Amino acid sequence: MPKLYELCGAETDRLFSAYAWRVRLTLGYKGIAFDSQPLPFTAIPGAVLPDYARVPVFVDGDETVVESFDICHYLEARHPDTPTVFGGEGGVQNAALIDNLIVTGLYPTISRMIIKDIHDQLAAADQAYFRASREERFGATLEDVQRGRDKERTRFATFLKPYRRRLEAAPYLGGERLLFADIALCASLCWARATSPYDILGGDALMDEWFWRTLDACHGRAALKRA
Amino acid sequence: MPKLYELCGAETDRLFSAYAWRVRLTLGYKGIAFDSQPLPFTAIPGAVLPDYARVPVFVDGDETVVESFDICHYLEARHPDTPTVFGGEGGVQNAALIDNLIVTGLYPTISRMIIKDIHDQLAAADQAYFRASREERFGATLEDVQRGRDKERTRFATFLKPYRRRLEAAPYLGGERLLFADIALCASLCWARATSPYDILGGDALMDEWFWRTLDACHGRAALKRA
Repeated sequence: MPKLYELCGAETDRLFSAYAWRVRLTLGYKGIAFDSQPLPFTAIPGAVLPDYARVPVFVDGDETVVESFDICHYLEARHPDTPTVFGGEGGVQNAALIDNLIVTGLYPTISRMIIKDIHDQLAAADQAYFRASREERFGATLEDVQRGRDKERTRFATFLKPYRRRLEAAPYLGGERLLFADIALCASLCWARATSPYDILGGDALMDEWFWRTLDACHGRAALKRA
Repeated sequence: MPKLYELCGAETDRLFSAYAWRVRLTLGYKGIAFDSQPLPFTAIPGAVLPDYARVPVFVDGDETVVESFDICHYLEARHPDTPTVFGGEGGVQNAALIDNLIVTGLYPTISRMIIKDIHDQLAAADQAYFRASREERFGATLEDVQRGRDKERTRFATFLKPYRRRLEAAPYLGGERLLFADIALCASLCWARATSPYDILGGDALMDEWFWRTLDACHGRAALKRA
């Protein structure tokens, strides 16, 4: 059975890497069985590949694939008999652009809303690594970054508008069926919801319903341990 | 021959509606001949359809189609033997999301950089309409809005990053061949370049080269009267 190396907190069933969730959701949507290999932050470097310090890593027999987008693309090519998450070659190309737009436009904002809460979900050794690396990145303490999250949530709602507008017209960003855009955005909410009680959607019922619809279509609800 | 109703300035060959440009570029890319019907702002209401005051309008025999995205989709369905701008059904769905992201994320910023320059390209009656309607929308004079454009250009460069990152890896946003995302973004630059001498790309050679590559692939260069 293929193995998915993903990220966990102090509890090994608290899975919270947005990028690993993309693969997990894609696997669930396609109905592909896999073994989860949860790793805390400090156990990741070199765990699967020498000099590689990120998740997800997907090991499928002799094949080892990294980068969430590339793993999803690999799964699509390898399992042509399963439901598509790209919808053809034009879909793959567009998804690569949407991937950039989501990662650049949404992930940093989400991060600032939950950064201290993520820290609190980690074991002691991982907390030390996380605080040092993230505080260097932000140039501020985790507490100071997260303190501004109500304002950040307003910005997030603005950034979500184009996605929301699409969901006013169709059940999924992909239209009648979900596509990679749904998976990428849903995965980012899994990251937030596994680590933080803060409602980054600010009670937006339409977005919340879409989130659960997508998670369920990917059989992901059981694996989401909410904070 | 089908007719494309589009927007012009005081000179009828100064075509500058970003939405009409999307259709024009799609027609050019697909090699579909059409008659241009340029209209200044104040001639648009009711020109083709009663109570309809927007361009583009595409009249193809008995069919009249409005909304740029829908016209492009219509052309794709009607001319299956021409190069695709969507790349299949997944591509159509993703393109609808990308359309929202471009319109929401980029168009308002472009608008603020060129709004007074657009005004200056119009005939007197259209200038009066344009100033009144846009100043109400912005809650500021055209001059005041445009005055902040250097700062706006910095924001624009940030918004462009996810697109730019894609173009660092491939000749088009659509990968090896252009897709609707290329057309929608290229069309917005046609809008700016037909109306304003201000370089909204701030000398970004990679983006500029992509612009001309896309425009030429759509046989659009001859129709772009630069300000």
